[in-house]
Amino acid sequence: MDACSIAVVGATGAVGRVFLEILEERGFPTKDIRLCASKRSVGKKLKVKGQEIAVEEATPELFSQVDIVFISASSEISRALAPVAVQQGALVIDDSSVFRMDSDVALVVPEVNASDLESHKGIVSIPNCSTTPLVMVLKPLMMVNPVVRVIADTYQSVSGTGAAAVEELRTQSGQVLAGESVTPSAYPHQIAFNTLPHIEPFLENGYTNEEMKMVNETRKILHDDSLAVSATCVRVPVVLCHSEALHIEFANPISPAEVREILSSFPGVTVLDDPGANVYPMPVDAAGKDEVFVGRIRQDVSHPNGIAMWVVSDNLRKGAATNAIQIAEEVLSRNLLKSAVKR
Amino acid sequence: MDACSIAVVGATGAVGRVFLEILEERGFPTKDIRLCASKRSVGKKLKVKGQEIAVEEATPELFSQVDIVFISASSEISRALAPVAVQQGALVIDDSSVFRMDSDVALVVPEVNASDLESHKGIVSIPNCSTTPLVMVLKPLMMVNPVVRVIADTYQSVSGTGAAAVEELRTQSGQVLAGESVTPSAYPHQIAFNTLPHIEPFLENGYTNEEMKMVNETRKILHDDSLAVSATCVRVPVVLCHSEALHIEFANPISPAEVREILSSFPGVTVLDDPGANVYPMPVDAAGKDEVFVGRIRQDVSHPNGIAMWVVSDNLRKGAATNAIQIAEEVLSRNLLKSAVKR
Repeated sequence: MDACSIAVVGATGAVGRVFLEILEERGFPTKDIRLCASKRSVGKKLKVKGQEIAVEEATPELFSQVDIVFISASSEISRALAPVAVQQGALVIDDSSVFRMDSDVALVVPEVNASDLESHKGIVSIPNCSTTPLVMVLKPLMMVNPVVRVIADTYQSVSGTGAAAVEELRTQSGQVLAGESVTPSAYPHQIAFNTLPHIEPFLENGYTNEEMKMVNETRKILHDDSLAVSATCVRVPVVLCHSEALHIEFANPISPAEVREILSSFPGVTVLDDPGANVYPMPVDAAGKDEVFVGRIRQDVSHPNGIAMWVVSDNLRKGAATNAIQIAEEVLSRNLLKSAVKR
Repeated sequence: MDACSIAVVGATGAVGRVFLEILEERGFPTKDIRLCASKRSVGKKLKVKGQEIAVEEATPELFSQVDIVFISASSEISRALAPVAVQQGALVIDDSSVFRMDSDVALVVPEVNASDLESHKGIVSIPNCSTTPLVMVLKPLMMVNPVVRVIADTYQSVSGTGAAAVEELRTQSGQVLAGESVTPSAYPHQIAFNTLPHIEPFLENGYTNEEMKMVNETRKILHDDSLAVSATCVRVPVVLCHSEALHIEFANPISPAEVREILSSFPGVTVLDDPGANVYPMPVDAAGKDEVFVGRIRQDVSHPNGIAMWVVSDNLRKGAATNAIQIAEEVLSRNLLKSAVKR
C-alpha cells in the first residue's frame, strides 16, 4: 500500500484518541498526519507515531492537502465538513450517522461488505457501534443459512456517549458508594448502578434512534431489506464494550456446533464458548481488543430454527476506530482513493 | 383475616430482612412471630413490629407451634426443612427453586394464579425473581390475545445473589475507581463495571438454570405448556431491581395502546411509558416498591403481531418477599390454612 496523507477530525475525542493508537498499532502507511479538533484544542499537541503533532482547525485548504479525512466528532461537524472535504478531493471516512442511510454513501464493515467500497462517491460511513458486531455475526451465518429474523437486546457502555459520560459514571459511582446524591448531566437519569433503556432520541414508532439504526443499517450492510430486526438498546454502568443478547431465526435448522464452526472461521470474530469453564465474552476481557467475541451459542428453545448467543465487542475499536482504519486499508489496497472526486 | 403464628427461616438474609419490613408495612395479622437462621445468628435480636425477637434454631418443635413457615435461605435448607414443617402441620411458603416444578406443589403469583392455592399440599413455592415480573405482564395480555412466544433478556441486580454479592459489587466498584485490582468471590468474574451472562449453573442445552426457570416456571404458572419462551439472563452492576427487555408474539395483532390499557388495569402492574418526557422504568426508581413497572411499549417492528417492552421490578420485594406475604394473605382469606396437613 502506498502511504497517504490523512486528517483526523475529532482527534482529541474518545474515538479519536483510540484511532491514533490503532493507526500506530496497525502500521497504517501515512506520509502526513493532520489533527483537527474544536477551536479550544487548537495548538494542543498529541503524540502520534513518535511525533508531536499540533491540533489545527479544519479548513478547506487543509482538506485539499490530504487523501483521507477521518471524522469522529458530532453529527453537526460531519454534516458541515464532510461535503467540503469531498469537494477538496479527499475521501471521507465518517463515524456519524448523518450519511449512513444515503443511497450514495457506502456503509461498510470490511469483513462483511468491502465490495460496496467499489462504488463509493467520496463518503464512506462507519456503522453504529452496536450494528457492527451484529453484522459481523450475521454475515457468515446467512451465507450458509438465510437469516429470517433477529432480536438484539443490548448492554451498552458509557464510552459510546463520549469522554464526559465516562467521567460521569465514575463520579456518580463514587458518590453512590459514599451515600451522596448524584446530579445527572450526560444522561437524563443516574447511570451509576442503574440501567437506562434510552439511547439516542425517541422516534414516532416508540423505538429510539439507536434501535432503528440497528434495524436499518443491518439491512443496508447485509443487502437484505426483508430481514426482520428488532432491538432494545440499554445503557448499563460499564465503561467500555457493548454486549448484545441475540436471538436469531434461520430459514432452516442449524446446530450450535455448526454456528460455532462458521463463526470461528470468519475473520475478526473469536468464539469464546466454554460455559463449563466459565468462559464467555465479557466487557472487561474484550476491552482494547479488535475482535468481536461470541459465546453462549445454543439452540434457542423457543424456535425450531433458532440460535441464541451473546456477543461483546469494544465499541471504540471495532465499533468505531478499528473499522475506520480497516476501511482505509481496503480503499488503499483496492486503489479506490484517487477516484473519489471524479465520481 | 384471623391472625396466625408464623416462622421466618432465613430471617437475617437479604430477602428475610425485607420480608420483616413488609410484614409490618402491610399489617399482616400475626399472633406470634418466630425467627430462624443459621447457628451463628442464634440469639441475635431483630426488631419486628416494634418487638425485639431473638433468632432461634429451626426445629420440628418450633414448626409444630406455627401456622405458616416462610423459608428464604438456601436450596439445601428448603430441601431439609420444608417437609419437616409440613409434617408438623404448618403451611410452607418457600422461596427456593427446590419444589417449584413438583406437580404436587403450587407455584403462585397471587394476581396471576391464586386459585392454584386451592389444591395446595402443604408447600407453596414462590417463582424465581425474574419469572414473577414476566408472568405479571403476560397473564393479563394472554387473557385478551393468546401469547405464542416470548423472548426475555434480563439485566439482573446482584441482590438476587445475596448480601455478600451486594458487598462485593460495592467493594469492587471502589477498587476499580481507585485503579486497584479486584478479587472475585461471589461470582466467577469481576462484576463491577462488567456484564456476566451467567446466572446459576449451566445445563446440558447451553442455557443456565436461571434461564430455564424462566421457561418452565412461566409455563407452569400460566398453565400453558406450549408457550415458547427463551431467555438470556445477565448479571449487571446494579444493586437492586431486575430489568427485562421483552419481545412478545401474540396470536393476533394488538396495538401498544391496547397493551398499555390492559396492563394499567391489572393489579400490581404500573405503566410508566412517556418516553418523550424521559419516563420509563428504571432500577433506581423501582427499588423499594411492590409494583412491576412496564414501559417502552411499542409495536415490534420485526413481527406483525409483536410487542416489545421494558419491565423493571424490585427482586427482593415482588420478586420474593412481597409475593410470599401476598400468598399468605390469600391463604388466610381463602381459609386454606388448616387443610394443609390433612391432604
